[in-house]
Amino acid sequence: MMKSFAPGLAIAFVLALPALADDDPLPSWNEGDTKRAIIAFVRGVTDKDSDTYVGEDARIATFDNDGTLWIEQPMYTQLAFALDRVKEMADDHPEWKTTQPFQAVLEGDMKALGAAGEKGLLELVATTHAGMSTERFAEIASDWLAGAKHPKFDQPYTALVYQPMLELIEYLQDNDFETFIVSGGGIEFMRPWTEEVYGIPPQQVVGSSIATEFKMVDGKPALMRTDKIDFIDDKAGKPVGINAHIGHRPIAAFGNSDGDFEMLQYTTIGADGLRLGAFVHHTDAEREYAYDRETHIGKLDKGLDAAAENGWLLIDMKTDWKTIFPQ
Amino acid sequence: MMKSFAPGLAIAFVLALPALADDDPLPSWNEGDTKRAIIAFVRGVTDKDSDTYVGEDARIATFDNDGTLWIEQPMYTQLAFALDRVKEMADDHPEWKTTQPFQAVLEGDMKALGAAGEKGLLELVATTHAGMSTERFAEIASDWLAGAKHPKFDQPYTALVYQPMLELIEYLQDNDFETFIVSGGGIEFMRPWTEEVYGIPPQQVVGSSIATEFKMVDGKPALMRTDKIDFIDDKAGKPVGINAHIGHRPIAAFGNSDGDFEMLQYTTIGADGLRLGAFVHHTDAEREYAYDRETHIGKLDKGLDAAAENGWLLIDMKTDWKTIFPQ
Repeated sequence: MMKSFAPGLAIAFVLALPALADDDPLPSWNEGDTKRAIIAFVRGVTDKDSDTYVGEDARIATFDNDGTLWIEQPMYTQLAFALDRVKEMADDHPEWKTTQPFQAVLEGDMKALGAAGEKGLLELVATTHAGMSTERFAEIASDWLAGAKHPKFDQPYTALVYQPMLELIEYLQDNDFETFIVSGGGIEFMRPWTEEVYGIPPQQVVGSSIATEFKMVDGKPALMRTDKIDFIDDKAGKPVGINAHIGHRPIAAFGNSDGDFEMLQYTTIGADGLRLGAFVHHTDAEREYAYDRETHIGKLDKGLDAAAENGWLLIDMKTDWKTIFPQ
Repeated sequence: MMKSFAPGLAIAFVLALPALADDDPLPSWNEGDTKRAIIAFVRGVTDKDSDTYVGEDARIATFDNDGTLWIEQPMYTQLAFALDRVKEMADDHPEWKTTQPFQAVLEGDMKALGAAGEKGLLELVATTHAGMSTERFAEIASDWLAGAKHPKFDQPYTALVYQPMLELIEYLQDNDFETFIVSGGGIEFMRPWTEEVYGIPPQQVVGSSIATEFKMVDGKPALMRTDKIDFIDDKAGKPVGINAHIGHRPIAAFGNSDGDFEMLQYTTIGADGLRLGAFVHHTDAEREYAYDRETHIGKLDKGLDAAAENGWLLIDMKTDWKTIFPQ
């Protein structure tokens, strides 16, 4: 029998607990139903005397990355990286001046780039991310991240992570959760920095991937990146990726778009015990961005409709978060 | 600069240490060069005052499964499972009576089965392992393992694990290694029991896989197993699987066949710091089996030739192990 997460129940549950002490685990979250519901869930699964107790082995929490842990507007960070890579590689590819979608990138023609569609974008990513070893790619990605700045906030992308979510990850880890990233973004694009920024090591990062090939190069082992897509960790791919990498169903999952819909279904529906599914809802045009049903990046439409029915939390960025980014 | 594992150096290193105390971490290993080399490696990477010290984050050790952690003769356990599945499913498949390789299985015709080759075996595995949810498959595999007995030892397969290797896993874990299985066997065939038998949880199991599809079935989420091979975690696939799942190069790797050759290369060659690569060499016809260059299952040929050159340990089952199986 499912005991899906019910906010009403959670509130009653928390009212019976003593008031929060000074050691508030979520100081960047405003007091309110959302914060109470998260804390009630964590207490519910960690209280040994509760019939909702969950052993440490099964305390698995998954987090989408783009738009859930860091900024994804006005374009996915990895796409900004791919566009910069095209410009950097263009000297070696004179044919790009007259070949789409590369021509569009070089001319800054966002309309032509949009016309190239998802296929064009995948081609950009595959071309600019392939043909080198995984180690070399990690260096290239790290170097780019160290220098690149977000167009609106003029800050490094890794500074534009959500402080409340950093606190949530740490709170769950402190309660013996194993925390995983499960992102549509490239696994090798994330791994070089997730440990430092989120406290999540490479083996707990799940993402989209291109195929690699093992080779001895000059007597040394290398994994060479091909231009063949291996796995797309998005939508119905997220439960597949979770199963492949983790082999457990999570008991908590956090996303922000319809790309996370199936991950939340997999986590919360038809399972025994207390579960938590939540969407970060981007409602703060002033401090970050406001978007949901009408955007191309991070579209949250059917997830908004299904949240109440499934007992999924909507984290309202504007009202639930005291601060957005680390100071 | 590589400091590959050099037995001579290791022995000198250990001679300077006090004699082993009563709390011998490897009691089923006979005293000798092999045991000393393993202990020297672990002390070398965990001694903070040593220039070979390795931080806990990078202490990754990988283990092949078949023939390295448990018995693989006279046939891979998973193949015995597939053959039993054919017999169990045969009533629903009358056409199998006249279709190879199924006919061969039903008639116990091992010669015809051998003639079906690797393609035939993959077909057997795909057919008998597909068409159900991952959860249902885990139940089927667990039920089979609970009842099946090994033809020579008349014991459950999970009792035919190598006691010295169990001690080695625990010794590494006690020294803050993260221990992973990296096996050519099916990931979903292993995960239901590796935690109980080896102390290795599902998220630290890497293996071959078939593709799964996420679906809502009767309002509940399910991952349905297709008959499409997704990944073969063998030979050059092992470094690929390690990178995909772990995202670190291991510093220690244990195998027993040429299927582990590339994993040992990836672990030990061209890397900074102390590394350990080892093959379990099946030399004990009396207590287990003796095989290397001439066998079809668990063939160790080029690995034997390359061991000395690469500084890889050969663990001699007959002389290095006091006992083979747990009592």
